[in-house]
Amino acid sequence: MNIDTIIGFMAAFICAIAMTPQVVKIYRTKKTSDLSLGAFGTLATGLFLWLVYGLLIHSIPVITGNGIGFGITLYIIIMKIRHG
Amino acid sequence: MNIDTIIGFMAAFICAIAMTPQVVKIYRTKKTSDLSLGAFGTLATGLFLWLVYGLLIHSIPVITGNGIGFGITLYIIIMKIRHG
Repeated sequence: MNIDTIIGFMAAFICAIAMTPQVVKIYRTKKTSDLSLGAFGTLATGLFLWLVYGLLIHSIPVITGNGIGFGITLYIIIMKIRHG
Repeated sequence: MNIDTIIGFMAAFICAIAMTPQVVKIYRTKKTSDLSLGAFGTLATGLFLWLVYGLLIHSIPVITGNGIGFGITLYIIIMKIRHG
């Protein structure tokens, strides 16, 4: 695997798990009022399209990374709707 | 351009601009206390690596999309540090 591919995989992995500390923070504080529902809704849409793209081109890294990111973002949206 | 590529471009564009409503919300309210610095710091790291990847493989869409996303995320981090 060359350096380009390694950096690409690192980027995909880090972006996939990026919102994990936000989930932990919401879980601890139950506060979401400063979060923008529009921002996380748009992010979920984009990640869902990446997931569809991954399925179309049969790319396991694209499917996995964006599947995880989409799940995390969906959780944040549900918490935002619940806590306001 | 086939359907796969169109969906990929849509995904890249939507993810690049996803955090724009968050920037607008911060600009209006000056409140960032519910945002996780760790989450946005991780996101900025991932987007920066995507930017490096785009430069290495000479991909204009990857460079543009992630450059915009990285700039937006950096702004949110600066506001988070400023407003707490």
